[in-house]
Amino acid sequence: MTFPKQVSIFEVGARDGLQNEKPVSTQDKIVLIQDLAKAGIKRIESASFVSPKWVPQMADSGEVLRNIKRAADVTYSALTPNLHGLELALDAKADEVAIFGAASESFSQRNINCSIQESIARFKPLMQRAKAENIRVRGYVSCVLGCPYEGEIDVSEVARVSEILYKMGCYEISLGDTIGVGTPNNARKMVQAVSQVVPVDKLALHFHDTYGQALANILACLETGVSVVDSSVAGLGGCPYAKGASGNLASEDLVYMLHGLGIDTGIDLTLLAQAGNKISQALGRQTGSKVAQALLS
Amino acid sequence: MTFPKQVSIFEVGARDGLQNEKPVSTQDKIVLIQDLAKAGIKRIESASFVSPKWVPQMADSGEVLRNIKRAADVTYSALTPNLHGLELALDAKADEVAIFGAASESFSQRNINCSIQESIARFKPLMQRAKAENIRVRGYVSCVLGCPYEGEIDVSEVARVSEILYKMGCYEISLGDTIGVGTPNNARKMVQAVSQVVPVDKLALHFHDTYGQALANILACLETGVSVVDSSVAGLGGCPYAKGASGNLASEDLVYMLHGLGIDTGIDLTLLAQAGNKISQALGRQTGSKVAQALLS
Repeated sequence: MTFPKQVSIFEVGARDGLQNEKPVSTQDKIVLIQDLAKAGIKRIESASFVSPKWVPQMADSGEVLRNIKRAADVTYSALTPNLHGLELALDAKADEVAIFGAASESFSQRNINCSIQESIARFKPLMQRAKAENIRVRGYVSCVLGCPYEGEIDVSEVARVSEILYKMGCYEISLGDTIGVGTPNNARKMVQAVSQVVPVDKLALHFHDTYGQALANILACLETGVSVVDSSVAGLGGCPYAKGASGNLASEDLVYMLHGLGIDTGIDLTLLAQAGNKISQALGRQTGSKVAQALLS
Repeated sequence: MTFPKQVSIFEVGARDGLQNEKPVSTQDKIVLIQDLAKAGIKRIESASFVSPKWVPQMADSGEVLRNIKRAADVTYSALTPNLHGLELALDAKADEVAIFGAASESFSQRNINCSIQESIARFKPLMQRAKAENIRVRGYVSCVLGCPYEGEIDVSEVARVSEILYKMGCYEISLGDTIGVGTPNNARKMVQAVSQVVPVDKLALHFHDTYGQALANILACLETGVSVVDSSVAGLGGCPYAKGASGNLASEDLVYMLHGLGIDTGIDLTLLAQAGNKISQALGRQTGSKVAQALLS
């Protein structure tokens, strides 16, 4: 097996994680984000400017971004579904923003109430404004290994949507196994298919651990050359499509594997686990990281 | 990646699992073992004839073996630390037995109060009697990827102990990452080293999930040709060396991955998850299988 020498962790716990947990205080979020930076994480999704009607947990996103003590070499990003969200993110001085598309027509309809094509059309003014402001935009593609409504998703559709977002100007495409149903061979085949139309160094893996497969899937995909992986400290965030089930992969478990493979992440695993344990305490729940559980005991 | 077409699951939940859980009734154990057979599992570790002073949860092992309704094509095995244990297993009509050695001197001393060499000497009368009775003996080797007392374990020591047990007559050597600290590359290198002295089709993987690495490690090792994997339904069994942490890998999560890779196991995943959910209810705890959690919700 040939792996990249370095892997960059894109930490989503403070956004994709906390938006699926019970609310915590603004101060708890600020501490979490600062702790993650201290642990060596360089890319931290910190906010989401979606309607608080839909995601009340993220209503204080502007306040979070305005009050974190920023490290010079860390990127603090925000999810922005539309131009209004982008304006709020710019006001709060997000370093970069992210948009989200889907590889599943049914998921797009049910999740953002429009077709894949309409969702892409809606992103155009946002992309223009972001370009004018010289702010980078990351693109998420959901349901890349399966859809809660449609089941299997053809890899050609994943490649098509990824290419559109990339050509629109997204600097990186994060491939989301939103419901965690993938297994190693089909995960790798999907990444290989997408890398035919988007350079592999512009791809990221965002694999959920709902079926316990995320680490094995990432291992299989690292051989394709992909070297950016999204994960969530303490496994923050359940699965909105399967109540009680796991959602995000725990960053600690990922970093443990990468370090064991001799891959550099720049992260201090002990500090990372401490950051995860602190926010888990604030949430009153056990950490979702097996590494953190083992280190704690 | 090239994988075996078929993988045989050696189910350890009723023994290695339940011995690290709070006690359940004899009837609960019998139901579990019968449910596992109905789900298509062909090799079920069902009993342990160690001293009930040390493992009270297994005190009813004879009663369990005597009262299960046996399927003709299923092997019901028992752990037997010594000749006395073997006699009890023979009385209860175990189909095969297992002995356990360690690749770590300190672990051997602390776990079974003798050196590795002494432990092997003690197995000799057991092996002779088993041969006379024409009953197969499986050999476990613990600490193959690390020891709670010594840390790293040299692969040459794992190979040495495995070869001794194999040459003594064990028909299969199960390589145990007892504390779950391994990662994919070192797991594969260890299996490759052992397969130089024991044929790879006589090896099994017994990887604990304490650090969340078990499935990724198994994925990496399947390429070596090994095709027997030990796992525990519902992830039964905590880690005695790290209280509150995970121990055994959940069989459901393993079977999900194998089926996703197109590998035949002969197992009905839904029935397997139901078996795990039933025993988890009897224990009053949540299943440790992410697949089962997702299927339940």
